[in-house]
Amino acid sequence: MNSPEILERARLLVEPAMAVAVEGLCAELGLPARYHLGWVEVDGSPSTVGAGKGLRPALAVLSAEAVGASSEVALPGAVAVELLHNFSLIHDDIIDGDIERRHRATTWAVFGTEDAIISGDALHNLAFQVLLGEATPERVAATACLVQATSAMLAGQAADMAFDDLPVVSFGDCLAMEADKTGALLGCAASIGAVLAGATQETVAALEFFGSELGLAFQAIDDVLGIWGDPAVTGKAAGNDLRKRKKSMPVAVVLAGSSSGATDLAAIYDQPGDLSTDDVAQATEIIEAAGGRERTETEASDRLKSALASIDGLAIPVAVDEEIRNLARFVVQRNF
Amino acid sequence: MNSPEILERARLLVEPAMAVAVEGLCAELGLPARYHLGWVEVDGSPSTVGAGKGLRPALAVLSAEAVGASSEVALPGAVAVELLHNFSLIHDDIIDGDIERRHRATTWAVFGTEDAIISGDALHNLAFQVLLGEATPERVAATACLVQATSAMLAGQAADMAFDDLPVVSFGDCLAMEADKTGALLGCAASIGAVLAGATQETVAALEFFGSELGLAFQAIDDVLGIWGDPAVTGKAAGNDLRKRKKSMPVAVVLAGSSSGATDLAAIYDQPGDLSTDDVAQATEIIEAAGGRERTETEASDRLKSALASIDGLAIPVAVDEEIRNLARFVVQRNF
Repeated sequence: MNSPEILERARLLVEPAMAVAVEGLCAELGLPARYHLGWVEVDGSPSTVGAGKGLRPALAVLSAEAVGASSEVALPGAVAVELLHNFSLIHDDIIDGDIERRHRATTWAVFGTEDAIISGDALHNLAFQVLLGEATPERVAATACLVQATSAMLAGQAADMAFDDLPVVSFGDCLAMEADKTGALLGCAASIGAVLAGATQETVAALEFFGSELGLAFQAIDDVLGIWGDPAVTGKAAGNDLRKRKKSMPVAVVLAGSSSGATDLAAIYDQPGDLSTDDVAQATEIIEAAGGRERTETEASDRLKSALASIDGLAIPVAVDEEIRNLARFVVQRNF
Repeated sequence: MNSPEILERARLLVEPAMAVAVEGLCAELGLPARYHLGWVEVDGSPSTVGAGKGLRPALAVLSAEAVGASSEVALPGAVAVELLHNFSLIHDDIIDGDIERRHRATTWAVFGTEDAIISGDALHNLAFQVLLGEATPERVAATACLVQATSAMLAGQAADMAFDDLPVVSFGDCLAMEADKTGALLGCAASIGAVLAGATQETVAALEFFGSELGLAFQAIDDVLGIWGDPAVTGKAAGNDLRKRKKSMPVAVVLAGSSSGATDLAAIYDQPGDLSTDDVAQATEIIEAAGGRERTETEASDRLKSALASIDGLAIPVAVDEEIRNLARFVVQRNF
């Protein structure tokens, strides 16, 4: 499935505004930020790799168009959610010790933990600065939404980290964690343009629900790719999640189940430090055989259906509605 | 000089509201935050050590009272600046590799870098969540002030880090860095109560200038204590700043000057890694002999005078005016 046109359309619209926002950072904070965003290489020269797909700004733009507003109305929201998302990635990569993202070295791996921490902090703060650039009621409401979503996102990230110290995590707990960690910010992205356009609370709530359900579908597929994804395609190291003994959805399915795989997988996971390549390979087979992959893919499919159903009742212009649904399907069927 | 009553008064007023705010964090984020704030020990049991003096909330409270409003008006601002300040300390301690603060182990040293990063992020975000709890025009304006001050604070911290890679830093550059790193948030603290009380822009600007000048005076003394302070009093390791080859004010004075001390100090600083105890002792003597301490103490005194002069023209109730001036003098003459 080709990348939908909307991603490119949103990128062309949002990136100049992103650039202006990041321009406001001092050189020391700006370089790691621009590197992380895939705009420059370590030495500041232009980069052609390392940019994200821009899913969140695209959703923000579509959410304004969905309520009949122009895409420009969504701009401060689109920039803010993308800044916020990238702050979380920079800090997550430090926390998870990940050395590769989007086919190149992570920000902390290049600039050091110290610079990565403070550059992430700067993007976090910049997101609110952009949104509150004008204190209209709509922008204040959008800021409150983003602050709330960020709060949930951080709680989700903390819960994910806490899972590392638990022997078993139920599928429900895993879903709740991922709803916070991924769903909340996608829910905000998918509604912030409508908030900025002054849409009704009902419409905003429906779009937010659409985004958070899509976020869960997205995260389920991300969890599958974290185990079975091709590094050449995902841009991340192979078997990353298992090597770090993450309790992602496919793992939670098996560990919390009663199959013989549960005992075998627990035995492998019940070791200190990173898993060996052999252990990763064995765990991968166990999880697939015990149905962890299938269950997670079903979850992705169910959540996508739920997301799409949730916007059925909205009076979205036909062309926009089609773009939203295409983007949602693309995200879940993606292998980027 | 005894700790002014206002610190205790503000603490009694603000701490319950802080507790309510921190209560909103999940357990994983809340424990490191509460530990850092000096409320609990690592195991969650109550702590009697490790709390800050609460300078910023006290300034926030006074700034509301200065414009004739009740202290309660300042509350969301007082809580927010204190949360924001503590976020910055948690991340600064990671960045600087400091293992001791307020007479005990720093948050990252106890909970690990990962938990400290995300707990700091949570306090950063919580500050805005508290302020935007109600979207009145005053609270929105206060949020914008805090976002702006945080942006400056992060730029100052980044500049401070960049100084590590420069052979010489001018006194002026050092002051500019410290105006951002410390002055901006103190300026916000010293005016946010007035913002919340709906004071005029002139009054807010005067109070903000008072706070940022006070911040520079405070930081100058902090820099002196970072070299000559008694660890038993400061709660930080002895000779910390020199060991880490920080270019604080007393160091900048000497390095950028033309004394023989400049060459000697540069030779000691021009080594990789942390300085030895002997080098720290030698550098301390050089800086004192070359006038770095005296110049910095003069700066503190001048900035304090400038701060106090800046509120001369305001119609502050006499008792409040006295408390503000007492607090300012205490902060600069402090040895905590």
